[in-house]
Amino acid sequence: MSDRLGRQLAFLAEADRLKSVLRANTLCDASRRENSGEHSWHVALYALVLADQAQPEVRIERVLQMLLIHDLVEIDCGDTPIHGSHDAASVAEAESAAADRLFGLLPEDQARTLRALWDEFEEGVSPDAIFARSIDRVQPVMQNLESGGGTWRDFGVSSEQLDARVGVKIARGAPRLWDHVRALTRRYFDAPAG
Amino acid sequence: MSDRLGRQLAFLAEADRLKSVLRANTLCDASRRENSGEHSWHVALYALVLADQAQPEVRIERVLQMLLIHDLVEIDCGDTPIHGSHDAASVAEAESAAADRLFGLLPEDQARTLRALWDEFEEGVSPDAIFARSIDRVQPVMQNLESGGGTWRDFGVSSEQLDARVGVKIARGAPRLWDHVRALTRRYFDAPAG
Repeated sequence: MSDRLGRQLAFLAEADRLKSVLRANTLCDASRRENSGEHSWHVALYALVLADQAQPEVRIERVLQMLLIHDLVEIDCGDTPIHGSHDAASVAEAESAAADRLFGLLPEDQARTLRALWDEFEEGVSPDAIFARSIDRVQPVMQNLESGGGTWRDFGVSSEQLDARVGVKIARGAPRLWDHVRALTRRYFDAPAG
Repeated sequence: MSDRLGRQLAFLAEADRLKSVLRANTLCDASRRENSGEHSWHVALYALVLADQAQPEVRIERVLQMLLIHDLVEIDCGDTPIHGSHDAASVAEAESAAADRLFGLLPEDQARTLRALWDEFEEGVSPDAIFARSIDRVQPVMQNLESGGGTWRDFGVSSEQLDARVGVKIARGAPRLWDHVRALTRRYFDAPAG
């Protein structure tokens, strides 16, 4: 028991480092960049509040678990901004190695369970993963809207690029949510200063 | 639908402010103070990983939900450090008013549900709330151990005060967890530099 608890607490202490991984987007008030720990909390809260946007077969309790662990690999790999350029294959390889190391800190049964949950999120095929990925994509859109442009401004993103890179992914798991949010983004991009 | 989504998104944007509420303890590496948003993520992850410490009747999915919302009132009230001095009655009154305002941003049915969940956590009587409160108390203990003393040093806390203020609350919902962690805290307090 003591060894089991020791491994669990070592994993939780290592997880603390996610609070020092910075994302491209800022807080809503634009005061500073958001970190991946607080982002993980915010998307879990999004999933809880927006659960009525999910398809009927989605189990929100599994979505919450996925969102709590989905970014842990960034402790080793950093955040990969969606509007930046990157080599998807090498990012995937590095994140898989990070998942080996991080979940490997846990007792074997939990390492297997949480690694399988992370793999499911990454694959994005199950209804739970599709909804979790929609939620993970919509939160930074709202952060950008609230902060006056955020990463769209930084990376020179157009309304069409946002639709193609992000919108289709949000719409896949939460189509009505994207309809609503897309109207807000159109208003931003159509504004004279946008 | 549009009005419902508008209220949900307004609540989620307001929740973002929890990332700017600073707690007394630091990150594990002592680089800066922890904020209540990332703390909320970390305790939810603690509950997920340490679920096997809960009594059999505890429903972890409800514990996760409680921990995701438990600190939102700090947006209006700030964090109340456990080792600092404060008037419990006036804190409770202010936090209740904050809960009225914050959950009141949501559609009425969700406002009722999440307010009831927050009240249940605050009351600390149900098995789910008792376990959630144990988890909320153990995480800062581990942050202090990792960072070399943290708020125990800042507030001049003794081993006996820690047992009385924090240990009994952790032990209530997770007795074996406190046995394990208490041994770690004893080692800290008994060390020559402690």
